[in-house]
Amino acid sequence: MTTAHEYATKNHDRFLAQLKDLIRIPSISTQPEHAADVQRAAEWLAGDMRRVGFETVDIVKLPQGRHPLVLGTWLGAGEDAPTVLIYCHYDVQPAKVEDGWHSDPFEPVEREGKLFARGATDSKVNVMTQLKAIESLLTSEEKSPVNIKLILEGEEESGSENIIAFAGEQGDRLKADVCVMCDGGIIDPDQPSLIYGLRGIVTMELHVTGPERDLHSGHYGGNVHNPIQALAEIIAQLHDANGTVTVPGFYDQVQVVGEPERQRLAEINPWIEADWQRVANAPQPWGEAGYSLHERIGIRPTLEINGILGGYTEPGVKTVLPAKAMAKISCRLVPDQDPARIYEQVRAYIAQIRPPTVRTEMIRSEPGAPAVAFDYTSHAMQVARAAYEKNWGKPALLERTGGSIPIAYVLRDLVSEMVFMGYTYKGGQAHGPNEHIYLKNFPRGINTAIDFLQTIKP
Amino acid sequence: MTTAHEYATKNHDRFLAQLKDLIRIPSISTQPEHAADVQRAAEWLAGDMRRVGFETVDIVKLPQGRHPLVLGTWLGAGEDAPTVLIYCHYDVQPAKVEDGWHSDPFEPVEREGKLFARGATDSKVNVMTQLKAIESLLTSEEKSPVNIKLILEGEEESGSENIIAFAGEQGDRLKADVCVMCDGGIIDPDQPSLIYGLRGIVTMELHVTGPERDLHSGHYGGNVHNPIQALAEIIAQLHDANGTVTVPGFYDQVQVVGEPERQRLAEINPWIEADWQRVANAPQPWGEAGYSLHERIGIRPTLEINGILGGYTEPGVKTVLPAKAMAKISCRLVPDQDPARIYEQVRAYIAQIRPPTVRTEMIRSEPGAPAVAFDYTSHAMQVARAAYEKNWGKPALLERTGGSIPIAYVLRDLVSEMVFMGYTYKGGQAHGPNEHIYLKNFPRGINTAIDFLQTIKP
Repeated sequence: MTTAHEYATKNHDRFLAQLKDLIRIPSISTQPEHAADVQRAAEWLAGDMRRVGFETVDIVKLPQGRHPLVLGTWLGAGEDAPTVLIYCHYDVQPAKVEDGWHSDPFEPVEREGKLFARGATDSKVNVMTQLKAIESLLTSEEKSPVNIKLILEGEEESGSENIIAFAGEQGDRLKADVCVMCDGGIIDPDQPSLIYGLRGIVTMELHVTGPERDLHSGHYGGNVHNPIQALAEIIAQLHDANGTVTVPGFYDQVQVVGEPERQRLAEINPWIEADWQRVANAPQPWGEAGYSLHERIGIRPTLEINGILGGYTEPGVKTVLPAKAMAKISCRLVPDQDPARIYEQVRAYIAQIRPPTVRTEMIRSEPGAPAVAFDYTSHAMQVARAAYEKNWGKPALLERTGGSIPIAYVLRDLVSEMVFMGYTYKGGQAHGPNEHIYLKNFPRGINTAIDFLQTIKP
Repeated sequence: MTTAHEYATKNHDRFLAQLKDLIRIPSISTQPEHAADVQRAAEWLAGDMRRVGFETVDIVKLPQGRHPLVLGTWLGAGEDAPTVLIYCHYDVQPAKVEDGWHSDPFEPVEREGKLFARGATDSKVNVMTQLKAIESLLTSEEKSPVNIKLILEGEEESGSENIIAFAGEQGDRLKADVCVMCDGGIIDPDQPSLIYGLRGIVTMELHVTGPERDLHSGHYGGNVHNPIQALAEIIAQLHDANGTVTVPGFYDQVQVVGEPERQRLAEINPWIEADWQRVANAPQPWGEAGYSLHERIGIRPTLEINGILGGYTEPGVKTVLPAKAMAKISCRLVPDQDPARIYEQVRAYIAQIRPPTVRTEMIRSEPGAPAVAFDYTSHAMQVARAAYEKNWGKPALLERTGGSIPIAYVLRDLVSEMVFMGYTYKGGQAHGPNEHIYLKNFPRGINTAIDFLQTIKP
């Protein structure tokens, strides 16, 4: 009898060739001229899913959606077995050689143990890791002890409208006991890690207006409060010298993270610090006193200025005293902060500190979403950690990421447990030039995904 | 014998028709497609100057210049008589009906006692007031008691390169005892006023950089100092709560204005306040405690933010933590502040208050210019005030304007005394739609200009 692991090992070269074939389809969801490529990638995937034994495979394109979802099901484990929903996305960001690539981004190149291509790390290796793990289970004699639903999204990079609409209208088709969110990856090629928390978000714009029109800074400079200056004065009051947000009530709902969890989070902090040095590399770290770099992004909320604009910003000099200035603000939230309440607190505080010499208006940009954090001691988390540990030879660290994954908020309502399992790594240049994965982590990932599906049944 | 005043009165209708003819030439110096129109306006003016009795008339186009200067001289008063240099400009700003004009901007329209057209107030009425005053003197039997040099600039609205180069290379041709800067106008159609001070200026850019690249605000928001926030924090520290600039040494060189002069300046303050309400109309005035609205722009220096830019500023949301942010800063200066010294003080202060979490770079944009202020009791000022009082029936108020007129800095070195005499008014919509003058002030202006030339000789 061939085990799923043996099957995966025997077929490694074909699996890698297939990954490369998928990468060669430039499924760029943000560029209309690549819509046919996204469709072609969906059909390629649906064809492979049918071939490897899925019982049903649908290419779903709702009216709202621009790019298709591919949904495959295998319910051969029976009604009494748990069902695992696996999510990945097959669309990619744009890429051109001129952006700084060393080779054609859509012609995968192996070099120094890595595979370079657009989509390698975000997120075609995740797609193919899951698909080939399922193939190994369904094609080998072992079969799968759990039912499987595999949903592959084609517009994660361009708004996820289709999958959100689909989950709303046909959510029953996605219902499962456990959801594996397979996007992103581990902290380091040789150090497995699992994310178990995402921050939420709420976004807004602050508009400051002063004089009725743009003025000559000679004729009015000195007796009109410059809206740019007033905006800067407001922004400067939103944090204190310790990096703490000063908005009254901002931290009231923040779930306090206990000492045992903070000790867990401390284990991954050196990698977060190394990543900070490698990617951010500002003159010095910044942030809330009393929290590690990881805690500042993982368990603490923020208020960030994402954009600012006012007056004359082209080359050269124009001595205008502008009528208005604007800032885009986002707050990243942690459990149990409520986006609507946080927006209202920020709005009220700015209305309170606004100088009487200008007007301010706040606009909520998008409804946003609350944070999610799972119990890191749950059954699914333990199974996932064990699967990583078996294949990487060391315990998986635990991470709470600072980002927000909209689809996670939708899918978590359809399942009992959720885990994030990804097989790329933080330094893989997602969205940038020379995106890559470590080749050795493709078979490691497939074996990990097989182990998870073989052991998740309680 | 016909006096100059009688001649002006008799010829009023022709003078007005000529003003309209000049207005109909769209001498827009900032638009290359109108270069021939600027040239045509220069030739039209040179022709009229020759006709009215100037001894020499040159159309000067230096290699550096894009648009011609017209220089006419009449030295018939003799070597012992003083020489008056009169400066005006005949180029105009662009204008299109779509900008909100009630009629074609280059077809002058009389309505409700006003003449509407581009260039009416800025500054063709000033050109024709001076030219027709000189015609009235030279053509009538009175002649002029002083020698006259009339210089008409064709690129005041587009950088003044030509006249600045000409003054440098052939400054002797412009040498005079008194210079009349004839640009701008009086505070109100029925209230004459004279400007006797201009602020100087120095301009710079402040660039703040933090992380090496734009970052995901989820993944780094909270442990990287956002450059927009850092820039706002720096800007907020450049003024205190009283509107005073906090840069150490900023006010050290400021010439203290004595109580008698402040009382003079207080007389015009109600008009400045009315203009503020009409044009600026912010929720409340702002500025340095202890100074009137007029003093804040006239005798006090400022530090102004003319532009700010950072991060994502297009519609919608992009949760970027940007690598950099930028502000454009200008300081309006008063006597005896030195532009280079002020720039250095601002640079040093920002370097001092810069948080250690970001880098800052300051760039001086343009060399700028120091302020000028004349003795408001000088002979030429007294003559000018008397001329206005005679024709308007009330004393001319005294004003120190907050703006900067680059050519004034060049010409003041070529003459002993300088006065500003203009015949438009502050509400005339210079540079805007429905630019206009009061028709009654055209003959009033011509008579004032005649009186000035007839009485300036000590």
